[in-house]
Amino acid sequence: MQEKIGFEVALNYKFEEAYQKLSEALKVEGFGILTQIDVQKTMKEKLGADFRKYAILGACNPPLAHKALSQSAEAGLLLPCNITLESEEEGSTTVRILDPLKMLQIGDMAKDEVLMEVGKEAREKLLRVAQNLK
Amino acid sequence: MQEKIGFEVALNYKFEEAYQKLSEALKVEGFGILTQIDVQKTMKEKLGADFRKYAILGACNPPLAHKALSQSAEAGLLLPCNITLESEEEGSTTVRILDPLKMLQIGDMAKDEVLMEVGKEAREKLLRVAQNLK
Repeated sequence: MQEKIGFEVALNYKFEEAYQKLSEALKVEGFGILTQIDVQKTMKEKLGADFRKYAILGACNPPLAHKALSQSAEAGLLLPCNITLESEEEGSTTVRILDPLKMLQIGDMAKDEVLMEVGKEAREKLLRVAQNLK
Repeated sequence: MQEKIGFEVALNYKFEEAYQKLSEALKVEGFGILTQIDVQKTMKEKLGADFRKYAILGACNPPLAHKALSQSAEAGLLLPCNITLESEEEGSTTVRILDPLKMLQIGDMAKDEVLMEVGKEAREKLLRVAQNLK
């Protein structure tokens, strides 16, 4: 697993199976998928452009989101946790999960102790999601 | 207009009117609203908790998103552009639009010239959205 601005996992599953695995692994850690963007479909509809199968998902752990939003109304700009799914040519799928602590590098957010606590907890959970996908 | 991690605008409109104004202002700059999270409803359903009227929207400008994603598959983790709408007690609504250039502070993203170009253009557009809301 490679670590960039998030946790990247190459799965030997096709897109739909990878989505299912991801959804289950997220559920174990208390995350639901609240939003989905079908990038391939959007690019075709809006630009007439061909794009590989690629989805941007917004995942949310309600207790953590509630804690963050109760602390700072601005924190909503950093929610939900972004995850991407990308179809690779050989029939595998790349999953990327944005590191919540990386998100807190924005502005002065990292100075807020409560947000840092939430970020650390979210990070631990999402790291376990990434590890359990394998 | 206050600048924090994004552009913050206090509108003398109730939530639904503010949403309408925002949606129109975004359209002028080529952004569509692709995702919506009703935070009040989610908190009630998932936690039984009361929360003020608060929405997290994902806005996308397809040509800019296409440019970013064609340059870097990882850039999808920074999409769509987050916008929040929050009901204030006195019947007004606070709109917050995340600054795309602030998003590029994450990791080494700012070192990518193409992503920086896209970020600057997105920033200019979203700044105009914020200014035109008034």
